[in-house]
Amino acid sequence: MLPFARVAIIGLGLIGSSLARAIREAMPTVRVTGYDADPDVRAVARAIDLCDDVTDTAGACVTDAELVVLCVPVRAMGAAAAEIAVDLPDEAVISDVGSCKADVLAQLTAVLPDHRIIPAHPVAGTENSGPEAGFARLFRRRWCIVTPPAGADPAAVERVAELWRRVGADVEMMDPQHHDLVLAVTSHLPHLIAYTIVGTASDLEGVTRSEVIKYSAGGFRDFTRIAASDPTMWRDVFLANKDAVLEMLQRFSEDLSALQRAIRWNDGDALFNLFTRTRAIRRSIVEQGQDDPAPDFGRRHD
Amino acid sequence: MLPFARVAIIGLGLIGSSLARAIREAMPTVRVTGYDADPDVRAVARAIDLCDDVTDTAGACVTDAELVVLCVPVRAMGAAAAEIAVDLPDEAVISDVGSCKADVLAQLTAVLPDHRIIPAHPVAGTENSGPEAGFARLFRRRWCIVTPPAGADPAAVERVAELWRRVGADVEMMDPQHHDLVLAVTSHLPHLIAYTIVGTASDLEGVTRSEVIKYSAGGFRDFTRIAASDPTMWRDVFLANKDAVLEMLQRFSEDLSALQRAIRWNDGDALFNLFTRTRAIRRSIVEQGQDDPAPDFGRRHD
Repeated sequence: MLPFARVAIIGLGLIGSSLARAIREAMPTVRVTGYDADPDVRAVARAIDLCDDVTDTAGACVTDAELVVLCVPVRAMGAAAAEIAVDLPDEAVISDVGSCKADVLAQLTAVLPDHRIIPAHPVAGTENSGPEAGFARLFRRRWCIVTPPAGADPAAVERVAELWRRVGADVEMMDPQHHDLVLAVTSHLPHLIAYTIVGTASDLEGVTRSEVIKYSAGGFRDFTRIAASDPTMWRDVFLANKDAVLEMLQRFSEDLSALQRAIRWNDGDALFNLFTRTRAIRRSIVEQGQDDPAPDFGRRHD
Repeated sequence: MLPFARVAIIGLGLIGSSLARAIREAMPTVRVTGYDADPDVRAVARAIDLCDDVTDTAGACVTDAELVVLCVPVRAMGAAAAEIAVDLPDEAVISDVGSCKADVLAQLTAVLPDHRIIPAHPVAGTENSGPEAGFARLFRRRWCIVTPPAGADPAAVERVAELWRRVGADVEMMDPQHHDLVLAVTSHLPHLIAYTIVGTASDLEGVTRSEVIKYSAGGFRDFTRIAASDPTMWRDVFLANKDAVLEMLQRFSEDLSALQRAIRWNDGDALFNLFTRTRAIRRSIVEQGQDDPAPDFGRRHD
């Protein structure tokens, strides 16, 4: 039994287009309609036959949908919801894929107070953007965190969870606030740090940018991948999850100062002890299938 | 014409064992002897037939060597040089693979003032350690930076450079001090930041360590790879290149504070502008062959 027969996807970037592909691959009888505010994206989506139908307005996209998934930057969720409000069937379930959940839930509830809103967050992605960057397998063996508001309809929650399972994800339920704290450390802080270090490295007087690029295999290149992620999406994430991000940033800065002091005072034992602890975390991540065991991310050496 | 007929490798970890394999593969007639201070490592090296001969003392390893390559942690270079000093032929060339060059050059010069010392740094590695982690292709299409001291014998410099070319590396010459500044930003700072963030994430009260591991695909896991690098090696690097590392760390901290302030004051434009700039750097790194163009480091999604 399919969780939904007709799914509307608003926003056809990396995640929205991957979801469209994944649904059509896993559930070929589901009708998938798509809309993107950018006419160029709609044209590409049509050219690559991404959905059963790509509409020219958001309203037309949702008019007979059983599920609407908003796949737009997190601070654009409220506006996207407002755009579909008039055409949205009363019984439709509204979900999204945003990286912050409390702020998005507040935006959607304000605009669609009478609808069943079941936010979700597939913890998956790449550094690329746009409808052509998506692929059906993006969500396989990745977690999708569903964050139903208090009092949510259990049947609607289960249908949203089932949709994600069908496209290959493992589903967890979480309180929206707790989600935002967990993701602040596992995703938002790492992105912020990566953006910062890449910015720092590109503005030096003693070292040229071409030297930074040339010798990036010493470690720097790893950070540039994350720092190539979509600028609009990430601007919105940091502003929408401000409190948790600032809290994690403060802790990180304190730890960095402690390490700086250890270097200045030649405290090799403090460095060695930290570096030994961090090595164990990597091992757990690989053991739990959250990263490839191949050394150097399995990069080719040929 | 081979650059050296007999090469001694002191230290059979990731880099030393990769170099042994690479030399034997690219130049099968070169005699490669190896030594490691750890008897267990020597036993493994013998069991996997890593070298033509694995000796039980450092002195025996170098006794007829034309080139000695020290592949030990950077602060152990002086002691390793002292251990071979008596047995080292006068005409042997001494090199190393350390990630800091000024400090290593000073250590080696103090111990072996009359030898030809030609330090080098292959900018290559993985997060794994030990003789079994090495592989012959590690240096292919990676840069090896040779940092001859002022007045170095040009023939010796060229022979060391040629050895690295033969194992697949591209060679650049650089002044030791400039090398240390460039690597502080492209390698040492990224490692320090990665170690810090992994430490921060593993010591939170509101988020459990198992949650951090579980949802690490949101970005955090990328940092754990680098933070799994050899603790002894990296402790030594930060202490041996202290001035450049502290300088880069200071700049990074200032940039991080600026970003923190932009988030606190909702300055979305400042965030967007930085995130757009950093995206371009990634593109250059991929274009110049310093990283894989495949999204998500080419991680498998199956």
